[in-house]
Amino acid sequence: MKLICSKANLLKGVNIVSKAVPTRTTMAILECILIDASANEIKLMANDMELGIETIIDGTIEERGIIALDAKIFSEIVRKLPDNDVTIETDASFKTVISCEKAKFNIIGKSGDDFSYIPYVERNESIVLSQFTLKEVIRQTIFSIADNDNNKLMTGELFEIDENKLRVVSLDGHRISIRYIEMKNHYDSKKVVVPGKTLQEISKIIPGSADEDVVIYITNNHIVFEFENTTVVSRLIEGEYFKIDQMLSSDYDTKVRINKRELLDCIDRATLLVKEGDKKPIIMNITDGNMELRINSFIGSMNEDIDIDKDGKDIMIGFNPKFFIDALRVIDEEEVNLYMVNPKAPCFIKDDEGKFIYLILPVNFNTAAN
Amino acid sequence: MKLICSKANLLKGVNIVSKAVPTRTTMAILECILIDASANEIKLMANDMELGIETIIDGTIEERGIIALDAKIFSEIVRKLPDNDVTIETDASFKTVISCEKAKFNIIGKSGDDFSYIPYVERNESIVLSQFTLKEVIRQTIFSIADNDNNKLMTGELFEIDENKLRVVSLDGHRISIRYIEMKNHYDSKKVVVPGKTLQEISKIIPGSADEDVVIYITNNHIVFEFENTTVVSRLIEGEYFKIDQMLSSDYDTKVRINKRELLDCIDRATLLVKEGDKKPIIMNITDGNMELRINSFIGSMNEDIDIDKDGKDIMIGFNPKFFIDALRVIDEEEVNLYMVNPKAPCFIKDDEGKFIYLILPVNFNTAAN
Repeated sequence: MKLICSKANLLKGVNIVSKAVPTRTTMAILECILIDASANEIKLMANDMELGIETIIDGTIEERGIIALDAKIFSEIVRKLPDNDVTIETDASFKTVISCEKAKFNIIGKSGDDFSYIPYVERNESIVLSQFTLKEVIRQTIFSIADNDNNKLMTGELFEIDENKLRVVSLDGHRISIRYIEMKNHYDSKKVVVPGKTLQEISKIIPGSADEDVVIYITNNHIVFEFENTTVVSRLIEGEYFKIDQMLSSDYDTKVRINKRELLDCIDRATLLVKEGDKKPIIMNITDGNMELRINSFIGSMNEDIDIDKDGKDIMIGFNPKFFIDALRVIDEEEVNLYMVNPKAPCFIKDDEGKFIYLILPVNFNTAAN
Repeated sequence: MKLICSKANLLKGVNIVSKAVPTRTTMAILECILIDASANEIKLMANDMELGIETIIDGTIEERGIIALDAKIFSEIVRKLPDNDVTIETDASFKTVISCEKAKFNIIGKSGDDFSYIPYVERNESIVLSQFTLKEVIRQTIFSIADNDNNKLMTGELFEIDENKLRVVSLDGHRISIRYIEMKNHYDSKKVVVPGKTLQEISKIIPGSADEDVVIYITNNHIVFEFENTTVVSRLIEGEYFKIDQMLSSDYDTKVRINKRELLDCIDRATLLVKEGDKKPIIMNITDGNMELRINSFIGSMNEDIDIDKDGKDIMIGFNPKFFIDALRVIDEEEVNLYMVNPKAPCFIKDDEGKFIYLILPVNFNTAAN
């Protein structure tokens, strides 16, 4: 194989497919990036068996061929090359010479035959979202997936399509994040659970333009994302997702309208008194026109008042401050509404237009001690 | 004690004195920042017994007093306060209330009586350098101090004053860095070894303006740096520094003039083939008009040619690539001269004006294997 392409193109492609290279694996071939120049295109590919990414880069093929190169070494070499045309040349024993200007690297590749190609997925009805919308909705929900594998479904996000509505849901047993998106077209109803890792990597490699689209195909076992010259194929998580609708009640006894920035800054300040692992709740004491926040820890105590608009009953309720910070950070609205029933029932953070719901379970606290 | 000052002033002061708070200590009081408002000024102070920093901040003293506050908690609180006036109030039992707008923190301080005050140092003849010059000379030499305590003198830098010349030297047994600075005034001869840690912290807190000065006082045991409202006092390292003049020879058999950027980039590329702990030398094969660099490791090999001007004999010589990278990174000149005698004698990197000398010892290499 012999091919020539610019360092910039090569680096861009390598950075994209590297996201599907597993950090730990027992199969050495999965640690490789495959360069497939067996046809008329230069294709880079990586696959960790759950997530596969392939991207086509511009360049000239002087001799067709395929080679698998260690992803870490190959990407470091490409990154440090001068900004000029790069030649990659391999021989029958997989010796690979990467040269650029006067620099010449010799490394040993692997046969492409051993590489696990990305599965072929039938593309039927396509769903179209702007890159910006997909990237945003991932950012606004991904923080509340579960970070361990105890319940596989909790490590993914529900993508639920109904006509022109897309609902994205994540939950970890203590909180639920829900975002509603209106799409341009109408589609058949679909409900799939996409692995969180896939979404995290996708959101890193989508440029995020509001004018460019991502085309999505869904089958029983796979989801495919196509944008620019890149295709991402991921397995879906099997199983029936949690019935969240029965957890979403619109009854409330207390409604609070509050400046988002003030609430976020205040909780952020309070948490500096809480060391990692030390589960101290932040306590909200809500009365007419005022929310007093306070936290008590081994280090000291903190309290602060925030002006609010309140409807309904007074309430004193405690939360894990991290859960509030996570949700408030991804809300762009200047003001948010909090809906509460009692100190043991979940709190809902909502906007007026029905674009999002963040549900957070409260925690018990000892009123006397706090 | 009760005092009021702006968050910005308080934060600036806390950031400066925090540099003298030890990361690990068995004496809890050393982990504190002392706020001394016992006279007409608000003084912040920290002291790790080797390095002490004090800075005066603007503010209003409503009630005189002294308090020691845990540096980590205090600085985190200050950092997260709203951008407004901050009130610090203490009572006889060292309860401390830090308030700003509606936020109020309660923490417990310590008596200032237990604090180790910074030693009083007599100020005689002062030496004046611009902030920029001091910051630069530290950056250009600090990387070649020894990173372990086996030889205490190697963990510091020699500051040698002779008339209007300042020479700063650091060495670690494999290399020597020397910078020469011409000062505006003439001073008495002095030779002291300043701890590397002091210099590292100083260079972080000096703003670095070319128009502002640092005033330096030197006694037998201490060095004092004064700039703006800040005073840094450090112990000196005792002992006779290494006789470096006898290591500096101006004889050479090969002189190479080379573009600094090209050499640095090439060595930087080569090192990506070398994993940490794996001591592979970079080999320079110097012939008329050309330097071939190559490196061979378990991962692969790399070679590259660079155009040079050469005087004298051809030479093949090997180096630890890190030592060359460290030195070349702090040289601002576009071209540098390398002077060599033979593959076992040190290489000197020098400029034409005599502003610096970097000496690097070569390493053995097996010509056959490479």
